[in-house]
Amino acid sequence: MQIRTDLAMESRELAGGLSGISTYTLQHGAIEETRVCIETEEAARALDKARGTYITLARPGLAQCLAGERLEMSRAIAEALRGLLPPNGDLLAVGLGNRHMTADALGSRVLEDLLVTRHLKDLPDESLHGRLRGVCAVAPGVLGVTGLETAEAVKGIVEHVHPAAVIAIDALAARESSRICTAIQITDTGIRPGSGVGNHRAGLTKETLGVPVIAIGVPMVVYASVIARDALGMLLQDIGMDEAAHAQAVDTLIGKLARQGMGELVVTPREVDELVGRVGRIIADGLNLAFQPHLSEEEIQLLSHDGP
Amino acid sequence: MQIRTDLAMESRELAGGLSGISTYTLQHGAIEETRVCIETEEAARALDKARGTYITLARPGLAQCLAGERLEMSRAIAEALRGLLPPNGDLLAVGLGNRHMTADALGSRVLEDLLVTRHLKDLPDESLHGRLRGVCAVAPGVLGVTGLETAEAVKGIVEHVHPAAVIAIDALAARESSRICTAIQITDTGIRPGSGVGNHRAGLTKETLGVPVIAIGVPMVVYASVIARDALGMLLQDIGMDEAAHAQAVDTLIGKLARQGMGELVVTPREVDELVGRVGRIIADGLNLAFQPHLSEEEIQLLSHDGP
Amino acid sequence: MQIRTDLAMESRELAGGLSGISTYTLQHGAIEETRVCIETEEAARALDKARGTYITLARPGLAQCLAGERLEMSRAIAEALRGLLPPNGDLLAVGLGNRHMTADALGSRVLEDLLVTRHLKDLPDESLHGRLRGVCAVAPGVLGVTGLETAEAVKGIVEHVHPAAVIAIDALAARESSRICTAIQITDTGIRPGSGVGNHRAGLTKETLGVPVIAIGVPMVVYASVIARDALGMLLQDIGMDEAAHAQAVDTLIGKLARQGMGELVVTPREVDELVGRVGRIIADGLNLAFQPHLSEEEIQLLSHDGP
Amino acid sequence: MQIRTDLAMESRELAGGLSGISTYTLQHGAIEETRVCIETEEAARALDKARGTYITLARPGLAQCLAGERLEMSRAIAEALRGLLPPNGDLLAVGLGNRHMTADALGSRVLEDLLVTRHLKDLPDESLHGRLRGVCAVAPGVLGVTGLETAEAVKGIVEHVHPAAVIAIDALAARESSRICTAIQITDTGIRPGSGVGNHRAGLTKETLGVPVIAIGVPMVVYASVIARDALGMLLQDIGMDEAAHAQAVDTLIGKLARQGMGELVVTPREVDELVGRVGRIIADGLNLAFQPHLSEEEIQLLSHDGP
Repeated sequence: MQIRTDLAMESRELAGGLSGISTYTLQHGAIEETRVCIETEEAARALDKARGTYITLARPGLAQCLAGERLEMSRAIAEALRGLLPPNGDLLAVGLGNRHMTADALGSRVLEDLLVTRHLKDLPDESLHGRLRGVCAVAPGVLGVTGLETAEAVKGIVEHVHPAAVIAIDALAARESSRICTAIQITDTGIRPGSGVGNHRAGLTKETLGVPVIAIGVPMVVYASVIARDALGMLLQDIGMDEAAHAQAVDTLIGKLARQGMGELVVTPREVDELVGRVGRIIADGLNLAFQPHLSEEEIQLLSHDGP
Repeated sequence: MQIRTDLAMESRELAGGLSGISTYTLQHGAIEETRVCIETEEAARALDKARGTYITLARPGLAQCLAGERLEMSRAIAEALRGLLPPNGDLLAVGLGNRHMTADALGSRVLEDLLVTRHLKDLPDESLHGRLRGVCAVAPGVLGVTGLETAEAVKGIVEHVHPAAVIAIDALAARESSRICTAIQITDTGIRPGSGVGNHRAGLTKETLGVPVIAIGVPMVVYASVIARDALGMLLQDIGMDEAAHAQAVDTLIGKLARQGMGELVVTPREVDELVGRVGRIIADGLNLAFQPHLSEEEIQLLSHDGP
Repeated sequence: MQIRTDLAMESRELAGGLSGISTYTLQHGAIEETRVCIETEEAARALDKARGTYITLARPGLAQCLAGERLEMSRAIAEALRGLLPPNGDLLAVGLGNRHMTADALGSRVLEDLLVTRHLKDLPDESLHGRLRGVCAVAPGVLGVTGLETAEAVKGIVEHVHPAAVIAIDALAARESSRICTAIQITDTGIRPGSGVGNHRAGLTKETLGVPVIAIGVPMVVYASVIARDALGMLLQDIGMDEAAHAQAVDTLIGKLARQGMGELVVTPREVDELVGRVGRIIADGLNLAFQPHLSEEEIQLLSHDGP
Repeated sequence: MQIRTDLAMESRELAGGLSGISTYTLQHGAIEETRVCIETEEAARALDKARGTYITLARPGLAQCLAGERLEMSRAIAEALRGLLPPNGDLLAVGLGNRHMTADALGSRVLEDLLVTRHLKDLPDESLHGRLRGVCAVAPGVLGVTGLETAEAVKGIVEHVHPAAVIAIDALAARESSRICTAIQITDTGIRPGSGVGNHRAGLTKETLGVPVIAIGVPMVVYASVIARDALGMLLQDIGMDEAAHAQAVDTLIGKLARQGMGELVVTPREVDELVGRVGRIIADGLNLAFQPHLSEEEIQLLSHDGP
């Protein structure tokens, strides 16, 4: 039975020394950047992740930190994105998830502070003339609410808008509760089927949409069964159980939890409503900085919804 | 200067005895049904409305009335819709407007209680087997928020979903404040450019989307300049001003108001937030009844989000 | 180390055969009623619960069940409350918790559908004349948001309003995840310090407020440490660990989890936002039925905000 | 018939040269400050306003202006408040109005960004030690929702909390639509019965609460009948109607409008939801600056909910 995680850096921890993967870690002030490159199909299969680059920016207590420190994270997001975005052309931001379910609302939340410019870029405003990159945004909702696969709706819009790239924002499931709202993953592999808190049935990838898809995700939940498994692991180590017996004991337990419906319960901080708002703002600022290289930080703040 | 109204029955009042128009009025209990058929291009131009059928269902105090009376209105909506819907095929409901602006939030509000079934209709649930019509729903947002023309987004989705018809729900501007939240207009002419509280730039019509478009609208505002003009009309009549002088006086005044920015101010009841919720529910129930003829009223209530 | 639960029926399960406690269980259709009476101070100390009566009404899948079944639960709540309410005098409903934090928002949610009548009961409406019991309602918020202890605010209002009783609604923490949103506890012991998802610092009791306090609570979360502990318990039983070693292993583990901050993480269903809305409505209907014995079910539905 | 306005500066315009009133106007950059002092009972009666000081800070396009300009307004609010606040003691902020009705939601909105400190001021945090003034906050709701007079609820809390002053925030009705969301009135006369968008039945004054009450209000609506009357006034002037005939014509019209229910309709900008958010933030920043003189602007931003 597979432990569910959407963070590549957590898969790496599970996989041990596998070939076809390169990783490195950098420290920028309080922010730790981990880059995982999955280079071969074998490695991709072993980790159950697509080939490509996964950048994770982590900072303990991210949502609680001060305004200046949050701006540092927004800049780090922008820096990471700049290496992945095509140099020209309109961009389409897609906020995934269900805005009525707090732990799955990150995507819609980010769009609230995103600087949307596609309809403005040809306006004869002298001060901005020629300096705005066209950005548009949609929050397509989830299948149970709309009756539409997210991929269907996005594909239809992509074919009319012809963006140079799609940037999809999503809430993720992690393996460690300490990652909730403290790590941001950016990847050029798009959104895979079955990933995210909302468990997307179809993916959003270059193959399905015909344009590059960059995915930005933040862990918002850990499945309750994962917490139980980790608790168990600690204990079995303490009591010196041998490895084979350990693995079997864990599998038996997970099976029991699943039969009790615990697999669908999620672990999340009590204050998740507030955290979504703060992390959403940090990401929106990061996107605005990356998307509008010809505007100053001040101009972006003045143009975005509520100023600084 | 044109008085802005999205209700065909109000245009008719303005136009007087014009040829190429047929109208009739029926009373069903407390509900008054007015049908306006615009049959010629001349009549269409004179009224600044597209050719087609406009059905208005009106009931004083609609939002305040009792549960049973609201259900009567939902049934009347369903009855009117049944005559306009294609007999077979999936339906796409489009909630127009801006959910963050109360007077323009009706479209999104209706979707909250709509029975979405397109992803369920092939489920092997015996009791429903073969009895669900496929319905899907999108709330594409407004240009200033998304950077996308509503028509672009809807066209893209229509091309992937291939619905038999689009049903678009929108908040309207009226000429009489007594119509706010008391009248519901249903038309087979779709959404015209420039109509609605949000002033759509592009329309949603059979010509642009390739499938029939039925529009359902409720007056939510009157423009302040219209109130001023009507107040003036009453007075000038009282003081016996002659007609030519009257018309000139009104035009002078409307010009002054426009220069003071009053034209953009809207008149709306203080409790509009609450009214949108109630009227939205009435319309959603009407759509559910019309869309699912093979389900009983009880089944619809049990399947829809919050039951009766 | 104490397992945190706000449900008396769960304390009872932990405590085993203790004297000074009487319990009984009744089945009303699909609803199971458990009554725990804590009769002595010794029993109260052993269970860490106040002396008094605790009624739990449980129904699997409560929030998902059909309209008619939900009404059955509302009637069962009303029946249980009738035995605890004073026969005459105004009633003050207090919605506890933080409306901005989903798992703690139940109290505010219930107030949205409560029939508030204290300002209406002297109106000369013939049809209602003399038949309304005066009900008022406050949602005082939480200390971190208001700077006020809930108990301070409620005490001040009680001294001006002089209600015959206070009815406080709160979100609870449980020990079993299967209880989340499926059980409703009603007690005449009021709200105790440290209880509820929001961990109230001061209590609301007859001693502090001077009038009877009836508390109505629904489990919305389980602490993550409890899930871990239960998972562990299952396993240790499987591997035949002896009881003393078991207890020590569990304590060691819980200590480790607490040091990792898992103790503050809560386990909750992903769709908790939706569940709060549905259970809140069930409770509001139950309160309305209990508070207004001289109105029919139909009259209550017509007077309450959105009808049936 | 009285024109309804809650702005003293508008009463003054109506009253002409009355004795017992002193006024002056100052320009601070783009902000115009108007101070009206009503010094005698005669003047108070003539203006239908209580004796005391009314400071209005006005800036065209306030809600749309840039971050730096908004901060200037917050500083001007703080400066005006400092002259009215008692030097020591806890402060109680009261957010009046109905948070479910957009045009009446300003009070609750301001509380969302207010720095609440009463429960923190004795914490042994070295950096803040002895520098925080105790602030607490309540949003008591409206009579129709709670069954409680606002004045009852606030009086009960005041008697328990013993604040040195109450600061009440409210949405106002104005006479000129150009004042909506562009002017902020600060007065030491408290809240009078019948004022505000919600039409408070009882007032909040030093007489009723026993402590000084400072009221802060922003015009959010103009009654539709006022718009009609003003439109009329313009026209009658144009056509050279004599003054007595004019007055009679206006009264006849207002009577007619009232009979049509237009008196209860309000005129408000379409984007009022957004404006309430922005003006609420400006006021909250102003209160935070005035309430916490021992904190720097930076510290206030770091402590307040979302930082700058």
